[in-house]
Amino acid sequence: MALMLNTDAAVIQDEAHGGGLDAARAAWPDAPDPWIDLSTGINPWCYPLPPIPAQAWTRLPETAALGALHQAAALCYGAPGAEHVVAAPGTQAVIQWLPRLVPRNGVAILGPTYAEHAACWRLAGHDTMMVPDLEAALGSGAGVVVVVNPNNPDGRVLERDTLLRAAATLGRRGGWLVVDEAFMDVDPVHSLAADVDHPALLVLRSFGKFYGLAGLRLGFVLAAPASATILRRAIGPWAVPGPAIALASMALADRSWADRMRQRLAASARDLDDCLSRGGLALRGGTPLFRLVSHPDATQVAEALAGRGILVRRFADRPTLLRFGLPADTAALDRLRVALGAIASTGCGKGQG
Amino acid sequence: MALMLNTDAAVIQDEAHGGGLDAARAAWPDAPDPWIDLSTGINPWCYPLPPIPAQAWTRLPETAALGALHQAAALCYGAPGAEHVVAAPGTQAVIQWLPRLVPRNGVAILGPTYAEHAACWRLAGHDTMMVPDLEAALGSGAGVVVVVNPNNPDGRVLERDTLLRAAATLGRRGGWLVVDEAFMDVDPVHSLAADVDHPALLVLRSFGKFYGLAGLRLGFVLAAPASATILRRAIGPWAVPGPAIALASMALADRSWADRMRQRLAASARDLDDCLSRGGLALRGGTPLFRLVSHPDATQVAEALAGRGILVRRFADRPTLLRFGLPADTAALDRLRVALGAIASTGCGKGQG
Repeated sequence: MALMLNTDAAVIQDEAHGGGLDAARAAWPDAPDPWIDLSTGINPWCYPLPPIPAQAWTRLPETAALGALHQAAALCYGAPGAEHVVAAPGTQAVIQWLPRLVPRNGVAILGPTYAEHAACWRLAGHDTMMVPDLEAALGSGAGVVVVVNPNNPDGRVLERDTLLRAAATLGRRGGWLVVDEAFMDVDPVHSLAADVDHPALLVLRSFGKFYGLAGLRLGFVLAAPASATILRRAIGPWAVPGPAIALASMALADRSWADRMRQRLAASARDLDDCLSRGGLALRGGTPLFRLVSHPDATQVAEALAGRGILVRRFADRPTLLRFGLPADTAALDRLRVALGAIASTGCGKGQG
Repeated sequence: MALMLNTDAAVIQDEAHGGGLDAARAAWPDAPDPWIDLSTGINPWCYPLPPIPAQAWTRLPETAALGALHQAAALCYGAPGAEHVVAAPGTQAVIQWLPRLVPRNGVAILGPTYAEHAACWRLAGHDTMMVPDLEAALGSGAGVVVVVNPNNPDGRVLERDTLLRAAATLGRRGGWLVVDEAFMDVDPVHSLAADVDHPALLVLRSFGKFYGLAGLRLGFVLAAPASATILRRAIGPWAVPGPAIALASMALADRSWADRMRQRLAASARDLDDCLSRGGLALRGGTPLFRLVSHPDATQVAEALAGRGILVRRFADRPTLLRFGLPADTAALDRLRVALGAIASTGCGKGQG
């Protein structure tokens, strides 16, 4: 007998994600190496790796060190206090756990968005639907509403007041508003981090994207203390590795790095926009960590780019859209510019004439 | 409204664990520093930290790298193949997840043992009992039986054939045998890793204890492929950090380090036994990574050791027992010997004459 999940194992499937450089290399063996991976929304300029004390590797993480990380996260994100913070080994771990901690419910997800939200709520047996906007979500009667803010991939931002009203509505019906702020660091003005004393509100923050350390696997839930306690016990002790605690505690406290990085990302996104639009791609949205563009032959553009060793994010169900992460340097941006020019001249771009 | 777990939030409590050096320093501020932490069963001689490629920190872990880790674990542990292996961010993460993936059930845990097993099954709402042996576990009619093998803290080992018969019995009633082999690396002769094609068997392996890298947070489930697939999807993508994948893939393939380490641990455990018995403590069991001893005034012995900057593991419900991990060097062993001698001479040892 196989393990039983709370739902049909048939929903188990691999979602499409960015970052699959190995698969791309295998599919385009003749592409020039090194590849340029623009398929993720991860900052290409990581927080400088500090020396990691050996004890961070060898010893179980101490409660005090984890507490210091929670404190640093609360200060960085603007949450009321460390007791509102739960560290997890990646936001994905939180996305896996949340549906297990909420009674079976109707779940409305504003989408299209990051596919793992719907996959994980469905996997846990919740009646899950995709809705186009917050009005539809609240009107559906769902007990749980999930909003990625800013949204991935289109960058749509919902304002703080709008979301707080939604949280109040959901709270009155005994429900939850889950706000995934994975890309909020680039411009935190609409963050709900300061509002998580609201008992119907759960805010998710990702460390790896803005700090360029996706391999570290670190994310946070910000929540009212009673919910944070339950989440901490569900995820369990020593959930975050010692090196991640040491490194992130430093990075989250470094406001000047974050301020400079926000400016650098914004400027680089403008340069990328210029390159993409000159290449015949129409800007549809994004955040400073990634840009969403459309093209009538987007699939062919992506394949032609892959043939030139440049990996971008496609969307199986939206074949005219592509998402581009930031090139890491001028050479990469130039290689993208040359590639897009060559692709346009060979006809892929003719749909936009 | 707080998040609802599937059970009463009243069961949420902090279990006592080893490794709390910060708390010990606070409780005994006058103790000599550095402390000697003997409160865990973690190998004090870690696998040498290799250089970690920067991409392991910056990029999302690649599917191929995770596959190579699964392969290395299958080879090292003797599992039938990589498809039988699920990597997780610490065995604790598996202990948190398993109770969520099994229908509500009677759960019998051979104990006393590592307390998180019972805590996590209870937290997920299973009817959980502690039983003294395998006969009682099977006789209880429980659908799930949990065995830590070798057991922590007493080192009791159940033989492979005995456990396979139990798995067969549980399989016939649609149940599960969970074997936590956290300390099996020191002498793998009774491991069930090769037997996990049995559909009622789940084997847990810890990386950090034997390799001395508890801060890394890495553990594995070995299971039949159908169960492994479900576990992988429940725990989710990118569950293990890139640095852990890189490091553990090397360490697990290094058979000669493991062989030498087994000999070193066994010799050091003999030296520790000698020190403990000369200090008036009676050996009750253990593995080469930790020794269990008894003393009529064990609590006072532990407090007197703490006053001398030596932290050992106590058991709130078994006040005559203490667990000692291995001292890292001769100086630490000497400090322990001197401390135990001084404690015995001041009267704590008088109960043993």
